[in-house]
Amino acid sequence: MIRLLSVIGGSEASEEEYRMAEEVGRLAARRGYGIVCGGRGGVMEAVCRGAKSVGGLTVGILPGHTPNEANPWVDVAIPTGMGEARNALVVSAGEAVIAIGGEYGTLSEIALALKMGKKVVGLRSWELCKNGGKLVGGITKADSPRDAVALALEEAR
Amino acid sequence: MIRLLSVIGGSEASEEEYRMAEEVGRLAARRGYGIVCGGRGGVMEAVCRGAKSVGGLTVGILPGHTPNEANPWVDVAIPTGMGEARNALVVSAGEAVIAIGGEYGTLSEIALALKMGKKVVGLRSWELCKNGGKLVGGITKADSPRDAVALALEEAR
Amino acid sequence: MIRLLSVIGGSEASEEEYRMAEEVGRLAARRGYGIVCGGRGGVMEAVCRGAKSVGGLTVGILPGHTPNEANPWVDVAIPTGMGEARNALVVSAGEAVIAIGGEYGTLSEIALALKMGKKVVGLRSWELCKNGGKLVGGITKADSPRDAVALALEEAR
Amino acid sequence: MIRLLSVIGGSEASEEEYRMAEEVGRLAARRGYGIVCGGRGGVMEAVCRGAKSVGGLTVGILPGHTPNEANPWVDVAIPTGMGEARNALVVSAGEAVIAIGGEYGTLSEIALALKMGKKVVGLRSWELCKNGGKLVGGITKADSPRDAVALALEEAR
Repeated sequence: MIRLLSVIGGSEASEEEYRMAEEVGRLAARRGYGIVCGGRGGVMEAVCRGAKSVGGLTVGILPGHTPNEANPWVDVAIPTGMGEARNALVVSAGEAVIAIGGEYGTLSEIALALKMGKKVVGLRSWELCKNGGKLVGGITKADSPRDAVALALEEAR
Repeated sequence: MIRLLSVIGGSEASEEEYRMAEEVGRLAARRGYGIVCGGRGGVMEAVCRGAKSVGGLTVGILPGHTPNEANPWVDVAIPTGMGEARNALVVSAGEAVIAIGGEYGTLSEIALALKMGKKVVGLRSWELCKNGGKLVGGITKADSPRDAVALALEEAR
Repeated sequence: MIRLLSVIGGSEASEEEYRMAEEVGRLAARRGYGIVCGGRGGVMEAVCRGAKSVGGLTVGILPGHTPNEANPWVDVAIPTGMGEARNALVVSAGEAVIAIGGEYGTLSEIALALKMGKKVVGLRSWELCKNGGKLVGGITKADSPRDAVALALEEAR
Repeated sequence: MIRLLSVIGGSEASEEEYRMAEEVGRLAARRGYGIVCGGRGGVMEAVCRGAKSVGGLTVGILPGHTPNEANPWVDVAIPTGMGEARNALVVSAGEAVIAIGGEYGTLSEIALALKMGKKVVGLRSWELCKNGGKLVGGITKADSPRDAVALALEEAR
């Protein structure tokens, strides 16, 4: 079985997020991990592109009914037709999760992953707070793609 | 069609959360709204119980395969067998969402609701932060059950 | 908890199917059952209409993201955004299943219900065959709406 | 993108079904297709085993929450936690579908695939009937694994 890392983030990425996601893809692929993501643009495209640049395998779990909405660096496209309910599958398929930037869809994936007991590493992503901005644990913060991949994979299965 | 309000929160509730959820159920039912929730214990039980105490209708969208896991105040039990992926359905079914306390499952529902463009009102619940504990918008904070129901329903459909 | 009967069938119904579905809705509601269906037109509309004509409760589990696609006789609309994957939920929610006419979507629901161990009663609906048209068991054949409701509810929970 | 063929069938397979499924896996992989299936035993195991014997890629979309329930010849395991609702994903991911033997779960996949407009080829599998055992179209009947793969792939995308 190919070991998988879930990488999540927005379908629109800043230049910095795009570069970070590509680097995460490259580093994870070099460690022998396949990438599983939402299969679309932005961070999802970048991480697939990075992984493919060093021969990694990429899996895209898509919200719609057709593989055509996958970005060009997806090897295995799984169209679900389930919309946002597919987010649970993206994080369920990886041993650990790296979140890069991201909006509400990414936040839902972070929460679902934590609920499943997976390690979630955040790179310029959401933080969890309660009681007037008091940070609460859950997301492991990383400073760089290298740091993120190391943290995500250190406890992986 | 019966108008529905989604109420989300943990399957274990503190005494205060339980009382707040019951009150939310009562107030929403008096406004003519049915309650849709995850159908289990804690906040979900309390909100159903409150709604039933004044003759409201309650819908429980359950993670497992059987209606038997519903709390005794659920009128319409929808067993999904989908686990956490059912969270998307709980928030999709209501016109607006009230979150009371809650853990990661609740956070995933908050995020999915915001992604769907629904109003989310929080009562002692999660806050959304970025960049070292800086609060970002999204969740409307309420001080009391009365406040929460008023805020949730003021813009409902 | 309100006991539910799943009624499945095509979104386009012949006149005879429409009349049969209305009658099934009326009879089930008089027996105190709520109706759960796919919430749309044709057989789904007819069964809801029949149930509402005698004060029954109707639940529509919809394929799309919005309650607006429900027929006018749906009381509780559950938009899933899951497309055809919502079919599993329609049959999972009822104690037994009545199939009226129907195309491939209905066949998938029949199969899922049988897989879940539910009783499935067919009214002018699919038959199951193997080995060159040899009928195999599974679906209980009914001759009339009255017969279908009696057969479906005789062993219900 | 790797082109995928969906292969469906029971988690318990007769010796003949097992051999046929292995042969289907080998032939499809030689044609450059990856296999997508439910990831478990019986026909699903056999088709993965056949594909791997000639270097093909195999994807298993699993009903439970953990990759551990995958058979040993699955390369990419997607645990869905969705139970039978995952059947829609298995057929949605392939360009065409081959059904080998199978029980009600397989029948639901056949129906969902036909509903999605996919070509479904049957090898000793279900037949579709109405009106007292009259065969109706939908499933293309194959006589051998070779025949099945040829029929399935001739019109693929």
